[in-house]
Amino acid sequence: MKIGILGTGNVGQTLGAKLLSLGHDVMLGSRQAGNEKAVAWVQQHGGTAREGSFTDAAQFGELLIVATMGTGTIAAVEQAGAANAAGKTVIDLTNPLDFSQGMPPQLFVGVTDSLGEQVQRALPGAHVVKTLNLVNVAQMIDPASANGGGEPDMFLCGDNAEAKQQVTELLQQMGWRRITDLGGIKEARATEPFVLLWVRYGIIHNTWTHAMRF
Amino acid sequence: MKIGILGTGNVGQTLGAKLLSLGHDVMLGSRQAGNEKAVAWVQQHGGTAREGSFTDAAQFGELLIVATMGTGTIAAVEQAGAANAAGKTVIDLTNPLDFSQGMPPQLFVGVTDSLGEQVQRALPGAHVVKTLNLVNVAQMIDPASANGGGEPDMFLCGDNAEAKQQVTELLQQMGWRRITDLGGIKEARATEPFVLLWVRYGIIHNTWTHAMRF
Repeated sequence: MKIGILGTGNVGQTLGAKLLSLGHDVMLGSRQAGNEKAVAWVQQHGGTAREGSFTDAAQFGELLIVATMGTGTIAAVEQAGAANAAGKTVIDLTNPLDFSQGMPPQLFVGVTDSLGEQVQRALPGAHVVKTLNLVNVAQMIDPASANGGGEPDMFLCGDNAEAKQQVTELLQQMGWRRITDLGGIKEARATEPFVLLWVRYGIIHNTWTHAMRF
Repeated sequence: MKIGILGTGNVGQTLGAKLLSLGHDVMLGSRQAGNEKAVAWVQQHGGTAREGSFTDAAQFGELLIVATMGTGTIAAVEQAGAANAAGKTVIDLTNPLDFSQGMPPQLFVGVTDSLGEQVQRALPGAHVVKTLNLVNVAQMIDPASANGGGEPDMFLCGDNAEAKQQVTELLQQMGWRRITDLGGIKEARATEPFVLLWVRYGIIHNTWTHAMRF
């Protein structure tokens, strides 16, 4: 499958490499085509690895993944373009973290809204699925590597059942077994605040490979 | 130790019985002394079990526990009286859940404030510690009974180090081993939203004995 990833940071690069290894075609998108990190990533991985602008990545992908910093999420999906995302599954794994007051971060949206809902409103024709925002990227692509070694839980939510099925299969390809569908995209209000707890636990216990399990 | 519990529901009764069994003196408080459920609880447990108003329980306890519905928390602590709670450790285990739109519940406070901080502001002389709000009461008093049987995580936060030490010892008496001090009472913003995830998981998987572990 052709997958467009919005974001060229550690999350985009690592997830992109994993998806290439699973046989997908991947384009990393950034604000401008020719982003230094994205070009280096393409050179490293070769084959079907590509890079371009957010718009290029949205046009390229049959499935899109938003993997920017939370503060850049809405600008990225707006630049990607609602028309380019229409009818496509869009995985939003970003977190609404506000680092402006230092560590640990606070949320910049919650209670009556969520970043997942904001992405869905910005891309009204797309099928947004919120997931993967609970763990570090190394655990996203290899959940068995989580602290403790058990099988952690993953949650997803979104308004379109087919899109959620597609994302569930992608999660299974990456090794996730305990996947709970929480319901509509509004349920991002329940999963996004979890990262506050995850970050605080990481700072205190000096671990960044932890993942939760009920 | 003399412990005053604000709230006569299942949480107050079960936690109160456990604290009696650990050798503490316990008074359950409600809006009015003579509450039917509280009287029955005293008759059932005898010994040092007592009941009274919120004010009576706050005067009685050397340590207080707020165990009301979240929507009743602030009214209960106001009736308990800031003067009666001054200098005392106050465990707040309530959750800011809004059931007015049915199940699953939403939060009524978060992001820039929390119910734990509201309790601390209502009782400015008290040392409020937020904890135990992550699990059902059966797991509060017996964490090993959690779904899966592992040792779950518990978090606490509060502005007073001595009060947190006192609460840590009480948690240890109830069987908790993996206890993380998250920092000041403001960190309730990180733990309170977790209950949204807990409730949704419970509804979907039809379990109410689950507890999280990193």
